[in-house]
Amino acid sequence: MGSQIGVTGLAVMGQNLARNIARHGFPVAVHNRSESRTKHLIERYGDEGDFTPATSLEDFVASLDRPRRIVIMVKAGGPVDAVIDELVPLLDKGDILIDGGNSHFEDTRRREKALAERGLHFLGTGVSGGEEGALNGPSIMPGGPDDAYAPVAEILTTIAAQVDGTPCAAHIGPDGAGHYVKMAHNGIEYADMQLIAEAYDLLTSAAGLSAPEIGQIFRQWNEGDLESFLIETTATVLGHTDAATGRPLVDVILDEAEQKGTGRWTAQSALELGVPVTAITEAVYARALSARKDQRTRASAILPGPSGGSAPDGFVDAVRDALYASKVVAYAQGFEQMRAASDEYDWNVDPGTLATIWRGGCIIRARFLDRIKEAYERSPELPNLLLDDYFRDAVANAQDAWRKVVHTAVDLGVPTPAFSASLAYYDGFRRERGPASLIQGLRDFFGAHTYRRVDREGVFHTLWSEDRREVSAD
Amino acid sequence: MGSQIGVTGLAVMGQNLARNIARHGFPVAVHNRSESRTKHLIERYGDEGDFTPATSLEDFVASLDRPRRIVIMVKAGGPVDAVIDELVPLLDKGDILIDGGNSHFEDTRRREKALAERGLHFLGTGVSGGEEGALNGPSIMPGGPDDAYAPVAEILTTIAAQVDGTPCAAHIGPDGAGHYVKMAHNGIEYADMQLIAEAYDLLTSAAGLSAPEIGQIFRQWNEGDLESFLIETTATVLGHTDAATGRPLVDVILDEAEQKGTGRWTAQSALELGVPVTAITEAVYARALSARKDQRTRASAILPGPSGGSAPDGFVDAVRDALYASKVVAYAQGFEQMRAASDEYDWNVDPGTLATIWRGGCIIRARFLDRIKEAYERSPELPNLLLDDYFRDAVANAQDAWRKVVHTAVDLGVPTPAFSASLAYYDGFRRERGPASLIQGLRDFFGAHTYRRVDREGVFHTLWSEDRREVSAD
Repeated sequence: MGSQIGVTGLAVMGQNLARNIARHGFPVAVHNRSESRTKHLIERYGDEGDFTPATSLEDFVASLDRPRRIVIMVKAGGPVDAVIDELVPLLDKGDILIDGGNSHFEDTRRREKALAERGLHFLGTGVSGGEEGALNGPSIMPGGPDDAYAPVAEILTTIAAQVDGTPCAAHIGPDGAGHYVKMAHNGIEYADMQLIAEAYDLLTSAAGLSAPEIGQIFRQWNEGDLESFLIETTATVLGHTDAATGRPLVDVILDEAEQKGTGRWTAQSALELGVPVTAITEAVYARALSARKDQRTRASAILPGPSGGSAPDGFVDAVRDALYASKVVAYAQGFEQMRAASDEYDWNVDPGTLATIWRGGCIIRARFLDRIKEAYERSPELPNLLLDDYFRDAVANAQDAWRKVVHTAVDLGVPTPAFSASLAYYDGFRRERGPASLIQGLRDFFGAHTYRRVDREGVFHTLWSEDRREVSAD
Repeated sequence: MGSQIGVTGLAVMGQNLARNIARHGFPVAVHNRSESRTKHLIERYGDEGDFTPATSLEDFVASLDRPRRIVIMVKAGGPVDAVIDELVPLLDKGDILIDGGNSHFEDTRRREKALAERGLHFLGTGVSGGEEGALNGPSIMPGGPDDAYAPVAEILTTIAAQVDGTPCAAHIGPDGAGHYVKMAHNGIEYADMQLIAEAYDLLTSAAGLSAPEIGQIFRQWNEGDLESFLIETTATVLGHTDAATGRPLVDVILDEAEQKGTGRWTAQSALELGVPVTAITEAVYARALSARKDQRTRASAILPGPSGGSAPDGFVDAVRDALYASKVVAYAQGFEQMRAASDEYDWNVDPGTLATIWRGGCIIRARFLDRIKEAYERSPELPNLLLDDYFRDAVANAQDAWRKVVHTAVDLGVPTPAFSASLAYYDGFRRERGPASLIQGLRDFFGAHTYRRVDREGVFHTLWSEDRREVSAD
């Protein structure tokens, strides 16, 4: 008997996923382009389960039970295509390729289609949780045909994180659906981290607290509604002392945030779909601005700030409430984007399922996801989380604090792009009538782009450069 | 002798451009897929110049002097490719195709390359100014090879708007450069209009003024630094009374802003390039939110706002100053994006030239563009307009008002996403050190993404799940 599944690409994510599979009793074949990683895995962890190392792709494929189930864990982009191209001649109809990297969903759509034409199954599969999750239970988001998911369902649900007896893995939908929601998950993660960074900055710059003090505050926050992996991790990171200098580590880390692309892709797709995901996008842009260290240094010497001031009473609690309200907005936006994508690409993604499988394993795991799960249970067709009773109350109760915090940030010159964008979105969202009528009027003036009216059907144009009569433009 | 140039596609933009060419004494051939438009043009405007109407593309091409110069004025996307495909077999080496629509710059790059391989020239050419500009002098941004520009330079610079004796037309750079800067122009226009809409909203919602009153205020603002086509147009639109209802027209126009894509493309490209263009992007998202009328109506019934309050003394002037400062940021971001694109695609675009040719003809024409032109004259390599003395002072002088306005908007619950984003950008830009170190710390914790330090070279990782030693990750 051969192995039930194979993993090719044994960098840390692939290695840990293979170990996770083996530890759960599934015989697993392992392969890496350079043999040293395969050897390392077998030497160091070979006793964790039933590994079959292979030095060539031919041997690797030959060692697998049929239908062959092959997890590809290589860098997104060209390398995935290269591995697929090498594998295809070795495979038979009905074999299943599982791309577990952060591929762009459009690539996944293309690959799934091309492979289906050759009788091969392709599962574009989001895997979240970093190295630790890959090893001990990630959140797994496979996208592809039902026929491809069924033969791997047992393995994927078994190796995934489990929350309240429910696995953090579920079939998301066809073709690119899995990679799309993983991308959006990462986009939401960008927003989460930016909001945390802004809260930290406010407590530093406005309230004058030290990193360890702020770490303690985050530890307390982790006891309440904000309880989550990222808040807990923030407490840990802020509390960590750099051995070399004796200073808080966060104070010696260079303040240039890097990014790998999923946040940017999320915003680009949101723009394409016309869904306003302002918190995620501001988070992506904040990283871009952070990377402009030279310009910022130059600017800091010449661009003045406000004349001073200090944080008001109750500021720490207000920041907590503002963080929570902003987070609600960020998630409302992200979930709306996933619904719009599902509509656009006919994926039939269930947002409640996403909330369920993100409760464990992944980076954004949080108590909060239970609230989202419940909201979609109450109303499966909910267009926006802010329209749910729980989230409406959460934001309504926080709004005084939220306004106080943003207003203080503005007065003191502390940049809070994601807090501000979330609040502006809230205020725009709850406006039955906004000022876009003026934009339509301007567009009609200079481009004859026409407008609609509030009092009757039809499309209209004012003859601005003639006698300014209104004419029908239907 | 044949015509010096031809225009195919005689919808209003093409028709007006052909008339503009003819009025300047250039013999012009005209063609449209359906003959009625050609007939209409000749019947109504045939005495404006030397038109040669053609019913077939063959006749159209045959009527042109060589090298043939053909302006394509059809809808961006497939129609442009279709016209090119029909024209190519009729052309000879050295002939020049000029796409005057709002094509995506990536399409332009592809077309220029494909046509160059067949010995044909392609000029992707941004034309701004709407119908009126096309007729009386637009701003023209041709991109493509030098050899293609030279034979059309005289016509393009003659029909363009003229400011202080300088034509608002210039060769922008190779392949997609012209369409790129036109796209960015439109993105900036989105930001301009959104900022104006927010100012209008503040004066309505916070200061309680009527549309005609606000129109008067904009008319006054148009006497100062804000002097521009869009401010003047805003005054006109706000002052216009709807004949049917006797109410201000802006109050009966439906508040759902539409969009055609160039704003979205600008933001998507900025994300790709890693340039934070927050004002443009918030403007695009604000239109998307405005279009969610059903959700907003539902939300308005259940999501509470703040408990009240009113605009502070001097609010109208403060809004003017905030508008100007936010506009400076929007332009600083947009110009930085164009520089980044120029670097990325090797276009060698001169930002001072853009400021020069946008002073007239186009939608964003403004006194302000002279200030930008001067800034690049002072410092051609200026990375960001905020680092120029004039703009630094402009923003520094406005900042108290700017903060007061955003702070008031936040307190009163008036959404000002673009004002807020611009101010947050300003405060982020002038920070030598920001909170991104925490983001790097979190990324290192959960993804081993490593970080750099402020005190020494290298790349580092903390062994978070082991003994928390720091190791080199070079």
